[in-house]
Formats: sequence, C-alpha cells, structure tokens
Amino acid sequence: MKKIFLFLFLGTFVLGFSQQTMLSLEDAVLGYQKGLNPSSLNDLQWVTNSNSYVFQKDSALIFTDAASNKVTQNIPLSDLQKSYPELTRFPRLMEISTNELVFTNKNFIETFNYNTQSKSASISFDEAAENTEYNSKAKAIAYTLNNNLYIGTLSNPKIAVTDIEDKNIVSGQAIHRSEFGIVKGTFWSPEGNYLAFYQKDESHVTDYPLVDITTYPASLKNIKYPMAGQGSEIAKIGIYDLKTQKNIYLTIDTSDEHYLTNLSWTPDEKYVLTAEINRGQNHVWYNRYEVSTGKKVNTLFEETNDKWTELEHDAVFLPNSNTSFLWFSERGGFMNLYHYTTDGKLVKQVTSFNWVVTGILGFDESGKNVFITGTGADPREMNTFKVNLKTGKYTKLSKVNGTHSTQLSTNGNYLIDSYSSLSIPTNLEIIDTKKVKSTSIYSAENPLKDYKIGTTKFVTLKGNDGTDLYAKITKPANFDATKKYPVMVYVYGGPHAQLVTNSWLGGSSLWMTAFATLENYIVFTLDNRGSANRGFAFESVIHRKLGDAEMEDQLTGVDYLKSLNFVDSDRIAVNGWSFGGFMTTSLMLRNPGVFTTAVAGGPVTDWKYYEVMYGERYMDTPQENPEGYEKAKVHNYIKNLEGKLLLIHGSIDPTVVPQHSMTLLQEAVKQKVQIDFFTYPMHEHNVRGVDRVHLIKKMMDYIVENNK
Amino acid sequence: MKKIFLFLFLGTFVLGFSQQTMLSLEDAVLGYQKGLNPSSLNDLQWVTNSNSYVFQKDSALIFTDAASNKVTQNIPLSDLQKSYPELTRFPRLMEISTNELVFTNKNFIETFNYNTQSKSASISFDEAAENTEYNSKAKAIAYTLNNNLYIGTLSNPKIAVTDIEDKNIVSGQAIHRSEFGIVKGTFWSPEGNYLAFYQKDESHVTDYPLVDITTYPASLKNIKYPMAGQGSEIAKIGIYDLKTQKNIYLTIDTSDEHYLTNLSWTPDEKYVLTAEINRGQNHVWYNRYEVSTGKKVNTLFEETNDKWTELEHDAVFLPNSNTSFLWFSERGGFMNLYHYTTDGKLVKQVTSFNWVVTGILGFDESGKNVFITGTGADPREMNTFKVNLKTGKYTKLSKVNGTHSTQLSTNGNYLIDSYSSLSIPTNLEIIDTKKVKSTSIYSAENPLKDYKIGTTKFVTLKGNDGTDLYAKITKPANFDATKKYPVMVYVYGGPHAQLVTNSWLGGSSLWMTAFATLENYIVFTLDNRGSANRGFAFESVIHRKLGDAEMEDQLTGVDYLKSLNFVDSDRIAVNGWSFGGFMTTSLMLRNPGVFTTAVAGGPVTDWKYYEVMYGERYMDTPQENPEGYEKAKVHNYIKNLEGKLLLIHGSIDPTVVPQHSMTLLQEAVKQKVQIDFFTYPMHEHNVRGVDRVHLIKKMMDYIVENNK
Repeated sequence: MKKIFLFLFLGTFVLGFSQQTMLSLEDAVLGYQKGLNPSSLNDLQWVTNSNSYVFQKDSALIFTDAASNKVTQNIPLSDLQKSYPELTRFPRLMEISTNELVFTNKNFIETFNYNTQSKSASISFDEAAENTEYNSKAKAIAYTLNNNLYIGTLSNPKIAVTDIEDKNIVSGQAIHRSEFGIVKGTFWSPEGNYLAFYQKDESHVTDYPLVDITTYPASLKNIKYPMAGQGSEIAKIGIYDLKTQKNIYLTIDTSDEHYLTNLSWTPDEKYVLTAEINRGQNHVWYNRYEVSTGKKVNTLFEETNDKWTELEHDAVFLPNSNTSFLWFSERGGFMNLYHYTTDGKLVKQVTSFNWVVTGILGFDESGKNVFITGTGADPREMNTFKVNLKTGKYTKLSKVNGTHSTQLSTNGNYLIDSYSSLSIPTNLEIIDTKKVKSTSIYSAENPLKDYKIGTTKFVTLKGNDGTDLYAKITKPANFDATKKYPVMVYVYGGPHAQLVTNSWLGGSSLWMTAFATLENYIVFTLDNRGSANRGFAFESVIHRKLGDAEMEDQLTGVDYLKSLNFVDSDRIAVNGWSFGGFMTTSLMLRNPGVFTTAVAGGPVTDWKYYEVMYGERYMDTPQENPEGYEKAKVHNYIKNLEGKLLLIHGSIDPTVVPQHSMTLLQEAVKQKVQIDFFTYPMHEHNVRGVDRVHLIKKMMDYIVENNK
Repeated sequence: MKKIFLFLFLGTFVLGFSQQTMLSLEDAVLGYQKGLNPSSLNDLQWVTNSNSYVFQKDSALIFTDAASNKVTQNIPLSDLQKSYPELTRFPRLMEISTNELVFTNKNFIETFNYNTQSKSASISFDEAAENTEYNSKAKAIAYTLNNNLYIGTLSNPKIAVTDIEDKNIVSGQAIHRSEFGIVKGTFWSPEGNYLAFYQKDESHVTDYPLVDITTYPASLKNIKYPMAGQGSEIAKIGIYDLKTQKNIYLTIDTSDEHYLTNLSWTPDEKYVLTAEINRGQNHVWYNRYEVSTGKKVNTLFEETNDKWTELEHDAVFLPNSNTSFLWFSERGGFMNLYHYTTDGKLVKQVTSFNWVVTGILGFDESGKNVFITGTGADPREMNTFKVNLKTGKYTKLSKVNGTHSTQLSTNGNYLIDSYSSLSIPTNLEIIDTKKVKSTSIYSAENPLKDYKIGTTKFVTLKGNDGTDLYAKITKPANFDATKKYPVMVYVYGGPHAQLVTNSWLGGSSLWMTAFATLENYIVFTLDNRGSANRGFAFESVIHRKLGDAEMEDQLTGVDYLKSLNFVDSDRIAVNGWSFGGFMTTSLMLRNPGVFTTAVAGGPVTDWKYYEVMYGERYMDTPQENPEGYEKAKVHNYIKNLEGKLLLIHGSIDPTVVPQHSMTLLQEAVKQKVQIDFFTYPMHEHNVRGVDRVHLIKKMMDYIVENNK
C-alpha cells in the first residue's frame, strides 16, 4: 500500500501530470495526424553526384555536406514562388542535382535551377494521368489514361504509345496483380531512348461485380478478378522507340498464361531481360530478348522447385558493364546474390548468408563493393552491408540493433541511415561507407512520452518442429503480475509479412499499444512459419496446405500465454485482417474452446475465391489440390463455433472480394450458427482514413464485450 | 405458497405434463410444418353450378351436398392414377364441375371426367412457363417465358402472342410493380375468344445491381428498379385474338408514364375498360376502349384527390348485363360500391358504409343481391354481407365475431365461411344465403393446447387527435402483474397492412407468442394512422410526410405501456421489417431515450431509394417534396442514437434494395456512430424458409441481450 502511494506521489510530482494522459483509441489510430509517430527529417534525400543531402524544413530546402555535416545552402520556398507563384508549399522533389530541382507541379514536370533561379520549360501531361514515371534523360514522362499508355514530352504532352480500344487490353500498368515483385508497368531504358512496358490482355479474366452505393441508384463497379483455377491474363512486353515512335513487342507466346516479370534493360539498351514463370509457378526461365527485333537471344538459366519459384528482384548490372549483373535467388534456401553474365554464365555466388538479402542499394565509386540490405543474423532486424564482389567479404554498416532503412548517395560514398528499434523512435545517421563511420544527424524524441503506455517485449518460442518463433507481448501500463489479464492475439501469419520486428513499438500499430492500457489487456503477436524473412524452408512449409503449420505455431503462442501466471487462459481473443482474417476464422473454428472471441476482417475463407497469382503459388489450382482447398475452407468448420465471431468486410474490397465473407455467412445461416457481420460501405481491403477509428472501436468493443 | 403448490399439483395430474411444454422459437417459426397452425379442410372449394363442395382427405376428394350436409361422392387418388399413373398425391384442383376435374400435371393441363373415369386430351405448355393462366372456355393456357407471352392450346403448346427481342419490353406479366391492385398480366375475355395482356417498356427504368454470390466467381444479377423521381415504365394493353392470331394494342399514349390498371372486359367481349392514373396519382380517368379498333370510346368518369387516387378493384358486371357494373370508390371517405353503366352514367351508390368494403364475391341466383366482404363496424374484423342492389338493404351473413374468409358457390346459394378469432383457431361453416342459416362443418382444435402460452388481448387507445387506435398486448405464460416486464414493440405501420385483427393469435406471428413466454416479455403491437381498413382520412394523413403521424401513434402506444405497472419503462425495444424497418429506425433515432434497442429488417431509410409507384403515391417525387424526403430520411438522425441498433438486410432484396441499409451504415460510420448490421446472403425482402429461424433468433437474441 505504501509502495503504491509512493508511485502515485512520484507520478504526480516528479514525472508530471502529463505522464498520466491516457492514449485514446482515436488518437492512436490517427497517430500520424496527431503527431504520435516518431518524427524525422522531411523528404530527406541525396543530391545526385554529390556528397550533399537535403531535407525540407520551415518551407525551405536545407543542403548539408555529409563530410563536414555543415549546412551549405538554404533555398526558401519564396525562391521557387518567383517562378511558380502557384506553389503554396515546398514540393516533394523527384530529383535533385547540384543545379536543379525536378518536381511535379499539378500536371507539369518542372525543372528549376536553384543556383541561377531560372526555370526550364515544363513538360506537361494529361491532367487525368495515372501511373506516371518521369525520366530525366528522355526528358519525358510516361503515364496511363484508362487502358492506354502515353508519353508527355517538352513538345507534346500526349503521345499515344498504345491506342487500343478494347478495354480488356491494358498497357503501361503493373500486371499479374503486382505479384512477383511487380510494382509498375513502365521501364525507361537507361539512356532514355526507349520505354519498355507491360501489357495484359484480360479477355479471359472474369468480372467480379462490386456495387457503388453512392450513386442514385446504386451502380455496378465491375473489376477484373482472376480466381484460382480460372482464366488468367495474357502478358506482353512492348518496347516503344522514342525516335521512330514505333512499338515492337517481344515475341513471347504467353497463350499458356505464363508470367513475365523482373524486366531489366542492359545498360547499352540493346537487350531486355525478363524472367518467365510457368502458371504452375515451379519453373523459371530467365531470358534475354533483342530490342531491335523483339526476338529471344538466349535463356540465361532456369530454376525449378517442387514448391514454388518466386522472383521479386530485377537484375542489377555491375558498374560499367553491359553483360555482368547480380541476380537474387533463393535456390540455396536463403535469398542470396549471384553474379551472372548475359550469356548465362554463373560467374560466382557473391553472398552465401543463411539469412535473407532483401535489396541492392548500389555500388561504391570503385565498383568493387556492393551495398545490400538484409536481415543479418537476427531476422527481426533490417541491416545494411557492404559486400566485396570478388571476395564476398562483407561489413555490417548499420551498427545499432534495429530496423535500418538506408539510402546510398549516388556516388556511393555515404549512406543516410534511418532506423528505429523497440527503444529508439527514429534516429538518422550519415554513414561514411569508406571509413564505416557514423554521424548522428537527427534523433526523434519519444512521441508517447506524455502518455500512459505499457511495455512491449520480445519473446522467442520453440515451435513443435524446433524452429525459433519470434513473438512480442504488450502489457498495459500499471501492469500487475499478480493479476490475471485477458489477451488479444493479433495475427497476420501469411507470406511476405513480418509483424515482430525490432522497430518502434516492435512493429505494432499504435492502437494495439493504446488498447492494452485502455482495457487492461495483454496484446500478443507471433510470426508463424510462412511469414517473411526467415528463408525458403520456413516460408514454404505452408505449400498446398495453407493454415496448418501457421495455426500450429499460433497455438504454440497460445500455450505460452497460458503458461503465464498473469494471463487469464479463459479469456483469449483473436483478431486479424486479410490472411490474418483467414487465420482468425481458422483458429477460432478449427480449435473450438481456445478463443472466446474472434474478429476477422476481410478474411479469405475459401482459397478458390482468391486470385490466381498469389493463390496458386501457395495452393496450386483447386483442380490440382482439391483436398488442400477443402481442408483450408473455413466454411467446413463453422458448425464448431464456440464463442463469438465477427466478420468485417469492405463493401468494395477488390483484393479479398466480399464473396469470402458472404459465402461464410450463408453457410453459418445454413448450419444454424449465429455469427456477426459488419460491412464498411465503399471501403476496399481494410478501412482507411478517419473511418479506421470506427473500425478499430468496433473490433475492440466486440472483443471487450465478448472475451469473458 | 399453498396456491402455487395447488397449481403445480393440478398441472401435473389434471392437465397433464404436456401443458408445460415450452414452445421453442424454432418450432414457432416453422409453425406450419410443425402442425402448430390451426388445421382446416384441404383444397376446399365449390363444384361449379352445384350446391356441392369438395375437399381432399386421405388421398381422396370428398363431395358434400351443402343442403343436406351429406357426403355424396368420394373419388380416390387411385381413380386418377389409372389415367395419370405419375400422380403421387391428389393434385390441387383448378376447376371442378359436376363431371370434370381440371388440374395441372407438370406442364400439362388435364381434364378428367370423374364420372366416366376418362381423361380428355391434355393441353401442354412449355416446361419453363411462368405466370400461367388457364381458361376453360378457350381451352388454352396463357404463360410467359422470359419477356414474352405465349398460349398453349390442344393443338399447339407454344403460340407466340408476342415475339419481342428487346428484353426491356415485357409482356403478359404484372406491371407497375403490382401496385394499384395489379396481380397478373393476362386477362382472358369472358368467352375465351381474346386474351388481353399488359406490356411494359422498361427502357427508361434503371438497373439496380444485385450480386449472386453462389456462382464462381460471384455474378451480376441486375433488376429493373424505378426509383422515385426517376424514369418509369411505359405501359400498354395488348389484345390477342385467338381466331385471327393477331394482336391489337389499345391506342393509349403513355409516354407521360401514366398508369394503366383495373382492366375489365365487358361480358360481350366488345370493350375493355381500364383505369388510367396520372404519374402524380391524383387523377383517374376510367376509360372504355373498343376491342375491334383499339380506340377509346369514352371516359366514363374521372376522380381526383388532393392526396392520391388509389384504385385496387376491377369493375364487376351485373349478371346478364353488358353495360351495368359495380365500381369500388373511396371518394366518400370509405371504400363503397357504385352502380355505373358503360356510357358513364352513375345509376346509384349501392353502399354507403362508414367502414371499408374489401371485395365482391358474386351475386345470388336472382341477380338482385350482391355478396360483399368488408370489415363491418369493427375494423379489426372481416365479414360477409348480402346487399340488395336496388334498396341497398344489407344483411350480415357472418355471425360470429372474427375474421371471415368466404367463398360463394357459383350459383349464389351457399357460402363456405372459414373464420377465426382471438379465441377460435379455425371454424368452417356453410351459410345458406337465402335462409341466412349456418351449419358447422369443421372446427379446428387449438394447435397450441399442449404448450405453455401466454395471453393476447386487444387494447383500444385514443390517439392525440382523438382517433381510436387498435393495439394488442401479449403477456407471457405465468404472467405476474406484480413484476416488471421488458417490452418488445413490434411495428409495421405502413399502408395496406393491418396487424391487429380479431383472428387467431390476434394476427401475430406465432414466434412473437413464443418469445413472450420464453423470455418473459411483453409483446405489443399497434396499428397507427396510415394502416389499412380504417378509411381514407385515417390512411391518407401520412401524405408527403411518411413517419410523422405513424410515430406519433406508436408513441401513444409507448405511453400506454409506460402507464402499466407491470411494464419496465426502461426496457422497451422495437422491431419491424420493411416499412416497419423504416418505423423502427425512425422511432429509435428520432426519439432517443424511448427505446434501448432496435432491430430493423429490410428498412426503407430514404424514400428516394424506394420505387416510383408506391413511393410517389405517398411522398410525391423527391423534386416535388424535398422537405418531406429530407425529414423522413433516417440518415439525418443517426447521430442521435442512444442504445443499440441492428440493421438486417437480404443481400438480394429487390423490393427495399440494399442501398437503404448500406447508405445508413455509411452515414453511421461517417458520424462515428456504432451500429450493428447483418445480411442474409441470397435472401430477398425478408428471410424465408428454414433460414427464418436463424433470423428470428438473431433478432430476439439481440433484443434480449441489449434491452436492459
């Protein structure tokens, strides 16, 4: 009793009243707008071919020399406003050289010489343009309008690269539903003389009908949605020659619906490399095509795998070479780098880590070293390394334990290192890549210092098969180990994602932290097998049987929770979205009695309703793997429900279409099982913006009300 | 204490254990299948031109002479099976004469002479036929396939009356969304020489997109839905001459989207009469058209009304006259009968009741008297009267207080009277129309006699404007007036419906009765102004301001409830569907604090999303009555919510389209108001079949859980 009194005394007089402020769910959800996320330097980037970096502050662009850490120049907004009076704030920069800023101003690409304070002619493009990609060498911008691709140049804002009436044929946009590392549909050649682009023919892809309820009356909003086992898209690669203004298409027969990805140019612009993957996704051909003819030159190599062959990285050519490049491959169990030549020769395996390489930042001035990102030994981290291309010798450049995001200066001399960890909100450092020396340039203060917040700690558990499983546990403020707390297990569990990271809040959303303290809850999350950054074996055990290994690991987490004296084993709820919705419904229905309450958002309930590219990679087709589909189908377990289950779905979810929840509701009704449902009208996959507060409140209210 | 003991003693030994059986919600909802509805005689009907009636029992058709009440004949199923071996049970009869039975056998109309035991040739029609209407004089059946109309005869099963490719043009089906008393789209002429039919052109009616989630993937299920203020259908009347096999269309210009209804033939087949109502629904022209030319002969009369002119009854010609007919009109404030001639002369007003005439059964042999149905002095009843056409003198033929449904023998000598009341499950009597004498032929036993059931009693309240308002109150079994009970107000409240009737259970669904006892609830229902069978003033006070008077009366009901010592005033819930969903959401949101809990099914939330024909009658168009629409729009009150609100909607509701609930959800999310929602996949307006058990449980669980 005396101890408690002392605590209150200190709380009030020493730490100040503000320490006692409760963090509301609303503020937590809107954390970014409310200033509750760690701050940083705004629009921080390197000046091209320079040791200087810039950031924006107080309506000015601040230049700093990385070597001396001295501010060298300061361009106020007013300088730009003389040339661009319509600017009301400093624009986001697309490029910055030692003379010029390049930025988008409405539907113009502007180039401003900040030394002479003079503007160059604007490159204009259509106001309705989407998927814009500017290229400074071409002095041109590629963009799409509806299903066609255009280029805007100094002389012509709208040159049609394609002019195809058939809406089923879409050019210049990401294809294959952005799987296989695809993020865009346009690829400028290194010198800007050509524009390669993806084209997809969706004639055989069925429409999925979504309904827009904001029109009078409601109206149809069809989307193209290739469902597992059904007709898929036919991809093509076109190459537009800016000089001749003509297109050529690579001569690839994709009538078997195989995939095209990882498009790269050779630096001399003579060839395009692309990986081709069969629809079954267990065989890759890496092929070289000649730009002038569109014909295949050679297959550099093939890769096959019993489970799947997934590519997510384009080739990266070595400096000053038209033939040597680095290639990412998981063939050895972990993503590593391989040095190849365009005639298909494997020069050497550059890295042989038993952890995952995630990216290439670039090379140093000598061209002898490559800078890469990867987890390093602790998969919860993200680090930056310098690797000698010849010897494979490597140095870890990011010293502090945590999650590092780095930008390499174009000359390879410096890195901007932005990182956080469980105990660090955000730090910024400049790393001298030669001296391997860091200089701090920014340290964000704890944005939650005035709030009553509990703690988040990591836990490492052993899975049934002996694998290390990483988890985190968030306790409320004023946690009392002699009490019993209810638990919310927050789960995702699907491929390509990792929720337990050594970053600010351990990678958790701020609302989870707030919820723990507001409701005196334990929040627990575990990354099961199948999740990212653990290597192929860990990730691929899920093949053809989604849910099985994932659930087993989550239940290892639940066993751990039940072993804790401060956990009320009879009050465990589970919550997740998307794949996490699949996990939530599966955990609830296939393990009756473990959880009292489940809230599943945008859940996959039957993999046959999910898309071809992602779904067939993990499950094959419904025709090839009927038992697997049947076993994973949540509907089959609805009769088992013990406790309360709430499904939530965006009414126009184009990713996990509403059919997943609707058919599960139908089955529940048929089986006479009472479940709950809510739909967010006109929201897609998940609920964003200010409406997210409503969603989080709905979910947490449901859990608090029923998890007892 | 002693008293209670005595009761238990009696309960066990005298009344037997079965009296204590609780009626489950499931059994109550499935009452019909479970034998919990009052029994009756099956397929009871008159033999044409005879004093005999027939019904089916034990796979036989029993003939009884109404005068002697003696069984005269018995036709076993086996007699029919000799001619129709595929019959597994006695078919439902379409017609029965003193020789022949006419019935449908799959896609054949069969005529069987039961005296000679011989079958006539079958009239076949298409297997996919819908909207079938057989005519024995024509020996032909009219039917529709998709949007076209066909006739099947002895010689040809598929004669195309229309052959129109454009799916927007629909022939032979009910038009105007079955408002204005329209129940079908085909009208055989009295001698069977012609088939008149409705045709509608829906080119200007927008599609409403519904989604079928049972296909793979989900697919679009467009319906034509004319929303208030938007483009409506263009109606036509066609007449097919069976001899010439040609169509003629009445020359009516309906480009102003006016309505055609109440189609009648003159007995000589020379003319067709039809009422035409302007789209504003405040002006009726009753017109006569010549069959041979399709041209208008005359307008018999016009009716106008400041509020609306609603017609629901066709002309009924007097026996042996081609020119004299009876016409229903509400022009005097109550629906009464008027004797007109086809040249437009009003011969006389036949009835002048200050209660509502609801139908004409036919005439007696002399043709001097007409048999009509109507409420009589107590609007909660339905009775049958004989009215002298000349003198207007009338006799009430249905003697017992209650709700009577009568069938007149074709010769006018006898009535079959089927009736129930609060205390009578179902009684059947034969009424001799000359002697006005009744003979009991059947008395159903109480189907709930073995169950623990509470009581339902009528209450008459005074509305704020002095009007009598009829209500009913159901108490649980073992009701104890010294206790406080929570209440569920069940509401409909819209036009054309009446929930408080002197019939079995007072007109309540059996699940309400079961719920009262299962959960120790009071269930209360009141018919507010606007509801049916009270005359035009009572019904039309709602014009242009739906919800206002209706809510006022419902709150009179709530005040009454609060005045009862056994009612817990702090625990009142409200529940309703369709217009009742509009009432439920309006009551909840526009009167915060009155109800703790509301469950609204298939609710209208904004009248602009409702259909042209019904919606504009009561509200005019959104353009004409913007204030009225705005005031009634439930969205405007969502911010007021106190307590819990659950919306339920059929996912393919074609009547109150899902947009009503979806836009209200969207507004709730926008206003940061937490409400609940459930949708029944692939259910239309309301949830039918075995799934209805799930619905009722969901609604009642929600009320029990939250009404506290």
